Amino acid sequence: MILHDFLPSGNGYKIRLLLTLLGKPFDLVEYDITKGETRTPEFISRINANGKIPALELGDGHILTESNAILIHLAEGTPYLPADVWQRTEVMQWLFFEQYDHEPTIAVLRAWVAIKGMPEHADILVPMKQAGAKKALEFMEKRLSDHDWLVADGLSIADISLYAYTHVAEEGHIDLSVYPGIMAWMDRISALPGYIPITMKP
Amino acid sequence: MILHDFLPSGNGYKIRLLLTLLGKPFDLVEYDITKGETRTPEFISRINANGKIPALELGDGHILTESNAILIHLAEGTPYLPADVWQRTEVMQWLFFEQYDHEPTIAVLRAWVAIKGMPEHADILVPMKQAGAKKALEFMEKRLSDHDWLVADGLSIADISLYAYTHVAEEGHIDLSVYPGIMAWMDRISALPGYIPITMKP
Repeated sequence: MILHDFLPSGNGYKIRLLLTLLGKPFDLVEYDITKGETRTPEFISRINANGKIPALELGDGHILTESNAILIHLAEGTPYLPADVWQRTEVMQWLFFEQYDHEPTIAVLRAWVAIKGMPEHADILVPMKQAGAKKALEFMEKRLSDHDWLVADGLSIADISLYAYTHVAEEGHIDLSVYPGIMAWMDRISALPGYIPITMKP
Repeated sequence: MILHDFLPSGNGYKIRLLLTLLGKPFDLVEYDITKGETRTPEFISRINANGKIPALELGDGHILTESNAILIHLAEGTPYLPADVWQRTEVMQWLFFEQYDHEPTIAVLRAWVAIKGMPEHADILVPMKQAGAKKALEFMEKRLSDHDWLVADGLSIADISLYAYTHVAEEGHIDLSVYPGIMAWMDRISALPGYIPITMKP
């Protein structure tokens, strides 16, 4: 398997972390998204028409895109995507929450502060993103203040997906110390056997 | 089943359209999101802690949230969510694309123009949303210019999800006539037996 990726990407890290926990070896091909390397005609035509990493190229020619869709694909049949129909639906709910409420605020703030530089109209856009980030984190805290995991009683791809950008939220100047449930949950994840940090190459 | 919903919502319409195509009866409880009716303590504590419609209340007490997670839940085991593993993953890819690239641009423009009124800083925000909407529609057009459906050769929840806000995009002042593949696909969907328009109550 070849993972087309950008090492600082939380969306890419989701896949790297799951593959590592599953014990599945993969190669990394890196693109610098700050230099438009996923927007080249070659990338668009061969890897992902939507011009984004991560994309997971399988040996049989299939190329999977959309980080959370890749998580579902890889986790099917493993404990990370429960077989129970209600738990599965809860996992899906968290995955869509991640892409709608969490990533566009928390990941984008980090990208602006720590990776790409601030955008035009930052004075207007940053407070909007900060308000959205706060709302998303409060919603997670509501669950994690009295549960160890987002779904049922074990690690699932919901945790992997939400962890990816939450654990680096402070790079976007978001203070996580006010969310004790989230802090304890992040400690549980980073203590997992087989855990790798976001900056570690396979 | 009780669908907690707001009739103009495309996210709600996804569920109404799928339930109708599946021949499953349901009751509608309506909330006016422009008046904050999904942000009341009662709604937050009993229906959806994230304060959003749609939420599907099942007879057994389960309440499902996140429109695309509800689609997956309802379509499992039906032709609208294929059993083939690659087709399933393609459906998932479209569903995450919908929530990340499509809904936050196309649905939000429509909400501003036709439902909620323009936001503060519209002069800055509207052109950003318009650029994102164009990109999302071009990505759909790439597929639909030479395919009848988003995944494989039949209607799936990918089509239902993307149709919901695409077919009312012009309410947000987006010109769809430049996308002939999308136009023909919308005609195919509205011609389906059992089709209901977004404004029709069950």
